[in-house]
Amino acid sequence: MKSLGKHLILELWDCQGLNDMGLVEQALRQSAQVCNAKILDLDIHPFSPVGITGVAVLSKSHVLIHTWPELGFAAVDVFICEDDLDPSIVMPIFQRIFSPSHVQAIEVKRGVAGNGIPS
Amino acid sequence: MKSLGKHLILELWDCQGLNDMGLVEQALRQSAQVCNAKILDLDIHPFSPVGITGVAVLSKSHVLIHTWPELGFAAVDVFICEDDLDPSIVMPIFQRIFSPSHVQAIEVKRGVAGNGIPS
Repeated sequence: MKSLGKHLILELWDCQGLNDMGLVEQALRQSAQVCNAKILDLDIHPFSPVGITGVAVLSKSHVLIHTWPELGFAAVDVFICEDDLDPSIVMPIFQRIFSPSHVQAIEVKRGVAGNGIPS
Repeated sequence: MKSLGKHLILELWDCQGLNDMGLVEQALRQSAQVCNAKILDLDIHPFSPVGITGVAVLSKSHVLIHTWPELGFAAVDVFICEDDLDPSIVMPIFQRIFSPSHVQAIEVKRGVAGNGIPS
Protein backbone atom coordinates (compact mmCIF):
# COMPACT_ATOMS: atom_id res chain seq x y z
CA MET A 1 0.00 0.00 0.00
CA LYS A 2 1.49 3.30 -1.10
CA SER A 3 2.02 5.82 1.67
CA LEU A 4 3.77 9.14 2.16
CA GLY A 5 5.59 7.93 5.21
CA LYS A 6 6.22 4.90 7.38
CA HIS A 7 6.04 5.48 11.11
CA LEU A 8 7.56 2.89 13.39
CA ILE A 9 6.42 2.98 17.01
CA LEU A 10 8.78 1.18 19.35
CA GLU A 11 8.26 0.37 23.01
CA LEU A 12 11.48 -0.71 24.71
CA TRP A 13 11.22 -2.45 28.08
CA ASP A 14 13.79 -3.29 30.77
CA CYS A 15 16.41 -1.05 29.21
CA GLN A 16 19.78 0.08 30.51
CA GLY A 17 21.39 3.49 30.08
CA LEU A 18 18.22 5.51 29.62
CA ASN A 19 19.51 8.45 31.63
CA ASP A 20 22.70 8.78 29.61
CA MET A 21 22.50 11.72 27.20
CA GLY A 22 25.55 10.45 25.33
CA LEU A 23 23.83 7.15 24.60
CA VAL A 24 20.67 8.92 23.47
CA GLU A 25 22.74 11.06 21.12
CA GLN A 26 24.50 7.97 19.80
CA ALA A 27 21.17 6.28 19.13
CA LEU A 28 19.82 9.29 17.24
CA ARG A 29 23.00 9.86 15.23
CA GLN A 30 23.39 6.20 14.34
CA SER A 31 19.72 6.04 13.34
CA ALA A 32 20.21 8.96 10.96
CA GLN A 33 23.36 7.34 9.59
CA VAL A 34 21.76 3.96 8.93
CA CYS A 35 18.91 5.78 7.15
CA ASN A 36 21.48 7.72 5.13
CA ALA A 37 19.74 10.88 6.31
CA LYS A 38 21.13 14.27 7.17
CA ILE A 39 20.38 15.58 10.66
CA LEU A 40 18.75 19.00 10.33
CA ASP A 41 18.35 19.47 14.03
CA LEU A 42 19.30 17.49 17.12
CA ASP A 43 17.90 18.28 20.55
CA ILE A 44 18.44 16.31 23.70
CA HIS A 45 16.82 17.43 26.93
CA PRO A 46 17.43 15.94 30.37
CA PHE A 47 14.65 16.02 32.93
CA SER A 48 14.81 16.16 36.71
CA PRO A 49 15.31 13.86 38.51
CA VAL A 50 15.67 11.48 35.54
CA GLY A 51 14.48 11.07 31.99
CA ILE A 52 15.54 12.32 28.59
CA THR A 53 13.77 13.47 25.46
CA GLY A 54 15.80 13.39 22.29
CA VAL A 55 14.77 14.27 18.77
CA ALA A 56 16.61 14.23 15.49
CA VAL A 57 14.82 16.07 12.70
CA LEU A 58 15.77 14.51 9.41
CA SER A 59 14.80 15.43 5.89
CA LYS A 60 11.00 14.98 5.97
CA SER A 61 11.30 12.50 8.75
CA HIS A 62 12.40 12.17 12.35
CA VAL A 63 13.65 9.91 15.09
CA LEU A 64 12.48 10.66 18.59
CA ILE A 65 12.87 9.09 22.03
CA HIS A 66 11.34 9.68 25.44
CA THR A 67 12.95 7.75 28.30
CA TRP A 68 11.74 6.71 31.75
CA PRO A 69 14.96 5.42 33.35
CA GLU A 70 13.19 4.74 36.64
CA LEU A 71 10.98 2.24 34.83
CA GLY A 72 13.51 1.01 32.29
CA PHE A 73 11.13 2.12 29.54
CA ALA A 74 11.66 4.11 26.37
CA ALA A 75 9.18 5.20 23.71
CA VAL A 76 10.77 5.59 20.28
CA ASP A 77 9.27 6.95 17.06
CA VAL A 78 10.88 6.64 13.66
CA PHE A 79 9.16 8.39 10.76
CA ILE A 80 10.67 7.76 7.34
CA CYS A 81 9.60 9.24 4.01
CA GLU A 82 11.50 7.14 1.51
CA ASP A 83 9.88 4.34 -0.42
CA ASP A 84 12.77 1.92 -0.28
CA LEU A 85 13.70 2.42 3.35
CA ASP A 86 12.14 0.43 6.17
CA PRO A 87 12.20 2.30 9.50
CA SER A 88 12.80 -0.97 11.33
CA ILE A 89 16.37 -0.70 10.09
CA VAL A 90 17.02 1.34 13.25
CA MET A 91 15.83 -1.35 15.67
CA PRO A 92 19.20 -3.06 16.12
CA ILE A 93 20.71 0.29 17.09
CA PHE A 94 18.30 0.82 19.96
CA GLN A 95 18.58 -2.81 20.98
CA ARG A 96 22.37 -2.66 21.06
CA ILE A 97 22.58 0.66 22.91
CA PHE A 98 19.81 0.20 25.49
CA SER A 99 19.65 -3.62 25.78
CA PRO A 100 15.89 -3.95 26.19
CA SER A 101 14.71 -7.38 27.30
CA HIS A 102 11.47 -6.86 25.40
CA VAL A 103 10.53 -4.77 22.37
CA GLN A 104 7.06 -4.01 21.04
CA ALA A 105 6.76 -2.55 17.55
CA ILE A 106 4.02 -1.40 15.28
CA GLU A 107 4.25 0.38 11.95
CA VAL A 108 1.68 2.97 10.96
CA LYS A 109 1.55 4.03 7.33
CA ARG A 110 1.07 7.78 7.15
CA GLY A 111 -0.59 9.64 4.35
CA VAL A 112 -2.74 6.86 2.96
CA ALA A 113 -6.24 8.01 2.13
CA GLY A 114 -8.78 5.45 3.23
CA ASN A 115 -6.25 3.32 5.06
CA GLY A 116 -8.70 2.18 7.66
CA ILE A 117 -7.73 4.75 10.27
CA PRO A 118 -11.06 5.78 11.78
CA SER A 119 -12.18 9.30 11.06
CA MET B 1 -5.92 1.47 30.97
CA LYS B 2 -2.97 3.15 32.66
CA SER B 3 -0.22 4.32 30.32
CA LEU B 4 2.89 6.45 30.51
CA GLY B 5 1.83 8.54 27.55
CA LYS B 6 -0.96 9.14 25.08
CA HIS B 7 0.08 9.50 21.47
CA LEU B 8 -2.38 11.05 19.07
CA ILE B 9 -1.71 10.42 15.38
CA LEU B 10 -3.49 12.89 13.12
CA GLU B 11 -3.79 12.78 9.35
CA LEU B 12 -5.03 16.07 7.92
CA TRP B 13 -6.31 16.07 4.33
CA ASP B 14 -7.13 18.88 1.89
CA CYS B 15 -5.43 21.51 4.03
CA GLN B 16 -4.57 25.12 3.33
CA GLY B 17 -1.45 27.00 4.40
CA LEU B 18 0.87 24.03 4.74
CA ASN B 19 3.86 25.88 3.32
CA ASP B 20 3.55 28.78 5.75
CA MET B 21 6.17 28.56 8.50
CA GLY B 22 4.32 31.17 10.52
CA LEU B 23 1.18 29.05 10.59
CA VAL B 24 3.17 25.96 11.55
CA GLU B 25 4.75 27.92 14.40
CA GLN B 26 1.32 29.14 15.50
CA ALA B 27 -0.01 25.58 15.51
CA LEU B 28 2.89 24.32 17.62
CA ARG B 29 2.81 27.24 20.07
CA GLN B 30 -0.95 27.11 20.48
CA SER B 31 -0.78 23.34 21.01
CA ALA B 32 1.75 23.82 23.80
CA GLN B 33 -0.40 26.55 25.30
CA VAL B 34 -3.61 24.54 25.30
CA CYS B 35 -1.69 21.68 26.95
CA ASN B 36 -0.33 24.14 29.51
CA ALA B 37 3.13 22.92 28.57
CA LYS B 38 6.42 24.75 28.37
CA ILE B 39 8.22 24.65 25.03
CA LEU B 40 11.75 23.36 25.63
CA ASP B 41 12.70 23.51 21.99
CA LEU B 42 11.01 24.67 18.81
CA ASP B 43 12.37 23.82 15.38
CA ILE B 44 10.76 24.58 12.06
CA HIS B 45 12.46 23.55 8.84
CA PRO B 46 11.33 24.44 5.33
CA PHE B 47 12.06 22.07 2.49
CA SER B 48 12.63 22.75 -1.18
CA PRO B 49 10.54 23.26 -3.20
CA VAL B 50 7.79 22.95 -0.57
CA GLY B 51 7.09 21.25 2.73
CA ILE B 52 7.77 21.97 6.37
CA THR B 53 8.75 19.92 9.38
CA GLY B 54 8.02 21.49 12.74
CA VAL B 55 8.59 20.09 16.19
CA ALA B 56 7.94 21.45 19.64
CA VAL B 57 9.63 19.50 22.40
CA LEU B 58 7.56 19.82 25.55
CA SER B 59 8.18 18.49 29.01
CA LYS B 60 8.19 14.73 28.42
CA SER B 61 6.07 15.11 25.39
CA HIS B 62 6.05 16.64 21.94
CA VAL B 63 3.99 18.02 19.08
CA LEU B 64 5.30 17.41 15.60
CA ILE B 65 4.12 18.09 12.05
CA HIS B 66 5.32 17.12 8.59
CA THR B 67 3.55 18.89 5.72
CA TRP B 68 3.11 18.07 2.02
CA PRO B 69 1.64 21.32 0.67
CA GLU B 70 1.58 19.95 -2.87
CA LEU B 71 -0.83 17.26 -1.69
CA GLY B 72 -2.67 19.26 0.92
CA PHE B 73 -1.63 16.68 3.49
CA ALA B 74 -0.11 16.97 6.95
CA ALA B 75 0.95 14.29 9.42
CA VAL B 76 0.73 15.43 13.04
CA ASP B 77 1.85 13.66 16.21
CA VAL B 78 0.94 14.76 19.70
CA PHE B 79 2.53 12.85 22.58
CA ILE B 80 1.31 13.80 26.04
CA CYS B 81 2.47 12.46 29.39
CA GLU B 82 -0.12 13.75 31.80
CA ASP B 83 -2.92 11.61 33.13
CA ASP B 84 -5.63 14.22 33.00
CA LEU B 85 -4.82 15.69 29.61
CA ASP B 86 -6.25 14.31 26.39
CA PRO B 87 -4.01 15.03 23.37
CA SER B 88 -7.09 15.51 21.19
CA ILE B 89 -7.40 18.89 22.89
CA VAL B 90 -5.09 20.18 20.12
CA MET B 91 -7.30 19.05 17.23
CA PRO B 92 -9.35 22.26 16.97
CA ILE B 93 -6.11 24.23 16.65
CA PHE B 94 -4.93 22.30 13.61
CA GLN B 95 -8.43 22.32 12.14
CA ARG B 96 -8.73 26.08 12.56
CA ILE B 97 -5.26 26.91 11.20
CA PHE B 98 -5.06 24.47 8.27
CA SER B 99 -8.76 23.95 7.44
CA PRO B 100 -8.59 20.27 6.53
CA SER B 101 -11.69 18.89 4.85
CA HIS B 102 -11.02 15.49 6.38
CA VAL B 103 -9.20 14.38 9.53
CA GLN B 104 -8.20 10.87 10.53
CA ALA B 105 -7.14 10.25 14.11
CA ILE B 106 -5.95 7.35 16.19
CA GLU B 107 -4.62 7.33 19.73
CA VAL B 108 -1.89 4.92 20.76
CA LYS B 109 -1.25 4.43 24.45
CA ARG B 110 2.48 4.31 25.07
CA GLY B 111 4.18 2.51 27.89
CA VAL B 112 1.53 -0.08 28.63
CA ALA B 113 2.97 -3.54 29.18
CA GLY B 114 0.87 -6.14 27.44
CA ASN B 115 -1.29 -3.60 25.68
CA GLY B 116 -1.83 -5.75 22.65
CA ILE B 117 0.89 -4.17 20.57
CA PRO B 118 2.44 -7.14 18.79
CA SER B 119 5.98 -7.99 19.80
